[in-house]
Amino acid sequence: MTQITDIITRLEATRDAAQQRFFEFLRIPSVSAQPVHAQDCRRAAAWAAEHLRGSGFTARICETGGHPAVIAEHGGTGGGQHLLYYGHYDVQPAEPLALWTSPAFEPTIVQGKHGPKVVARGAVDDKGQVSMWLEAFRAWHDVAGGSPCRITVLLEGEEEVGTQNLLPFLRANKAALQADVAVISDTGMWDIDTPALSTRLRGIVYTEVILHAASRDLHSGMYGGSALNPINALTRILGGLHDAEGRVQLPGFYDGVAEISAAQAAQWAALGFDETAFLQDVGLSVPVGESGVPGLHRLWARPTADINGIWGGYQGAGPKTVIAAEAGAKVSFRLVPGQDPARVFSAFEAFLRARMPADARFELKKFSGDPAIEVPVDSAFVGAARAALRDEYGRDPVMIGCGGSIPVVEAMHSILGLDSLLMGFGLDDDQVHSPNEKFELRCLDHGTRAHARLLGHLAA
Amino acid sequence: MTQITDIITRLEATRDAAQQRFFEFLRIPSVSAQPVHAQDCRRAAAWAAEHLRGSGFTARICETGGHPAVIAEHGGTGGGQHLLYYGHYDVQPAEPLALWTSPAFEPTIVQGKHGPKVVARGAVDDKGQVSMWLEAFRAWHDVAGGSPCRITVLLEGEEEVGTQNLLPFLRANKAALQADVAVISDTGMWDIDTPALSTRLRGIVYTEVILHAASRDLHSGMYGGSALNPINALTRILGGLHDAEGRVQLPGFYDGVAEISAAQAAQWAALGFDETAFLQDVGLSVPVGESGVPGLHRLWARPTADINGIWGGYQGAGPKTVIAAEAGAKVSFRLVPGQDPARVFSAFEAFLRARMPADARFELKKFSGDPAIEVPVDSAFVGAARAALRDEYGRDPVMIGCGGSIPVVEAMHSILGLDSLLMGFGLDDDQVHSPNEKFELRCLDHGTRAHARLLGHLAA
Repeated sequence: MTQITDIITRLEATRDAAQQRFFEFLRIPSVSAQPVHAQDCRRAAAWAAEHLRGSGFTARICETGGHPAVIAEHGGTGGGQHLLYYGHYDVQPAEPLALWTSPAFEPTIVQGKHGPKVVARGAVDDKGQVSMWLEAFRAWHDVAGGSPCRITVLLEGEEEVGTQNLLPFLRANKAALQADVAVISDTGMWDIDTPALSTRLRGIVYTEVILHAASRDLHSGMYGGSALNPINALTRILGGLHDAEGRVQLPGFYDGVAEISAAQAAQWAALGFDETAFLQDVGLSVPVGESGVPGLHRLWARPTADINGIWGGYQGAGPKTVIAAEAGAKVSFRLVPGQDPARVFSAFEAFLRARMPADARFELKKFSGDPAIEVPVDSAFVGAARAALRDEYGRDPVMIGCGGSIPVVEAMHSILGLDSLLMGFGLDDDQVHSPNEKFELRCLDHGTRAHARLLGHLAA
Repeated sequence: MTQITDIITRLEATRDAAQQRFFEFLRIPSVSAQPVHAQDCRRAAAWAAEHLRGSGFTARICETGGHPAVIAEHGGTGGGQHLLYYGHYDVQPAEPLALWTSPAFEPTIVQGKHGPKVVARGAVDDKGQVSMWLEAFRAWHDVAGGSPCRITVLLEGEEEVGTQNLLPFLRANKAALQADVAVISDTGMWDIDTPALSTRLRGIVYTEVILHAASRDLHSGMYGGSALNPINALTRILGGLHDAEGRVQLPGFYDGVAEISAAQAAQWAALGFDETAFLQDVGLSVPVGESGVPGLHRLWARPTADINGIWGGYQGAGPKTVIAAEAGAKVSFRLVPGQDPARVFSAFEAFLRARMPADARFELKKFSGDPAIEVPVDSAFVGAARAALRDEYGRDPVMIGCGGSIPVVEAMHSILGLDSLLMGFGLDDDQVHSPNEKFELRCLDHGTRAHARLLGHLAA
């Protein structure tokens, strides 16, 4: 306990220098999507490697086929857990530039409702969140010659372009990336006063279905009443995806879906989620989904079916009396623990086949099939993170879910066999991927200290 | 009877000259859609006016705001009926030119399965069918100083671009266009040996519906299970347009729809329509529409609902996890006699409103609302046309329907108060609007003589 006090004191004393380092990182326009910034991506990787070397790590730049990754190692000062820290140095494009109130790659301190915040591309996603643990490592190094835990760092440069090269890279570097748990700061808090651990991520099966009918577009006067209209058929079929109670109608869709624990439900209820306000922010007012199921359960713990796109026939101005030759849709299913993506995909295929008109031929493609992720909430790692956040905030963190997927979490699990500890410090209004992305300095400071405390709690 | 024999003899004797005139007409590239052909449209109008003057008509070119129309008059030699002949001198664009086997505006005689045919843009639609009655007028003029009927001719130049200027033109020239019946040759025969009168045209209500949900596109992970998905909603609503028996589900949709007469049904049954072959031509095999209703009834005498276009969300390659802000569709209804377009539109609005989710806002536009047309089959005009076709073909014509609409027929009825006699000589394989449009010379000759005979039968 004495040691962590020294670490916290050190962080306080070096706060300005840490902020200068963070700003250097933000000034590198490491936009992975834009080829003109390829060298900037490489510079950002080199910058991070150098930062880690300054904290006693060995660090190397690793080629991936795309932008390089950084792998760094520190043996630790004691027999603590072996932690794999994952983050990404690449950022989204800053465009549209005209909407920024200050230059996207010139970090600027602005006063906001929560005090000062830094405005820059990457401020929170993910350079700010990565900087928190980089500075925690440095404080431990300065004060104690290193953290008590053995640490491996994996910093990639293609998260914002779909992590395409990461999966083969993980497979190829499996030995170098062995650890006991993955630590990822790329998620959010419940609100600025309430720390959170994300313990559930929904999975996804994303498909495209194309329904073919006549060999060419037909005149709806000449053929209407005799020829199959594939848009009529597609709407009839997809219009039956849900029943009147909002339940998805694929055969066996809910098989294996477990109810969440009473403790979890009680904790979520205590969050006081205001679904009306959540919807009002986007111009809506009435929740949809399964009747009688609380809002957070629908968003975090229940599976969905959504048509993400649809097309067919004439989409231009005015009328055109056509019966189209084909029609198509993108249809995705958000999955929860207990659902098998392959079975859901097969069930969708069976659902379509059972409803397909005699004359229709359909093609069904699968773009992704990732299971939901559920982190065991009673592990030693979660216990240490709870304790670190409680020490820092004076209150217990909440265990929250996430309606979307984080592909790297699934990859950590399936390729490296690691659970992930998702301890993030972003807020809902951080403008991630948008102009004027920001990170609250209050979140940055709390997060840095919380990461330093986590290492203390994971000491042997 | 002696007189008509002289007329037929005259047509035979002047056949080559008539064909030369027809070819002159075809050589004028009067493509109404292409501004570069505006002068050609004017030339075609002038050419037709001159033709009519050569047969004793007074003729004038009338400005319409677009391509000009021709109005011509002949008082007739006796007290026969007053007939308004309608046709159009404009043609569809000839593109794609590379697919023509001979130049589109150089009429070429080609041997086909039915003997010689003329290949050119406008060969049948509508210059060929107009030429038939122009030549019938000329023969009557040459032999008898004019037809026994009073004749008004209205030839327009914008049929292929939607007849936009014709409706105000009809209203403005109502007095000049008074007559007892309209005669239109812009339809087809049942087959090359079976003459036909088209006595039913379906009407149409054509709409566009746009369903609005959130104020912006949403992430399907963050919002899926809480926010309204307008594509889910639109497919559910439009997927309910038909029941399992293929019946349209708008409230009161079938109110007023009359069964066709037993005589009509017997005649249609005798046509031996091969719906399987009809569908096989376009790659289909199983009829859709109302169960238990014969094919020709579904095509000609029963109303339909077809989604002519649909759109919403992501339509590009690969996946995008979006819940769209809006989705839309073009939805049209083919109507039959007894249905009121305004009531059908209101019923669709009510259908949508009753099924609209709480958070959705919808816009509904109407692009057209034309009632079905049914020509009384026991009129003196139909009787005369039957007789003319029986004389010419040695067999009774069949009374057929048409699944589509011909807007001018509705305008003749609603603006001028005239029924239309739809006596056409086209065949299904005439390649109307396509490269290598053709008209069988056998159809041209029969049609010309049939028109000459019709005038005889309508004499006082």
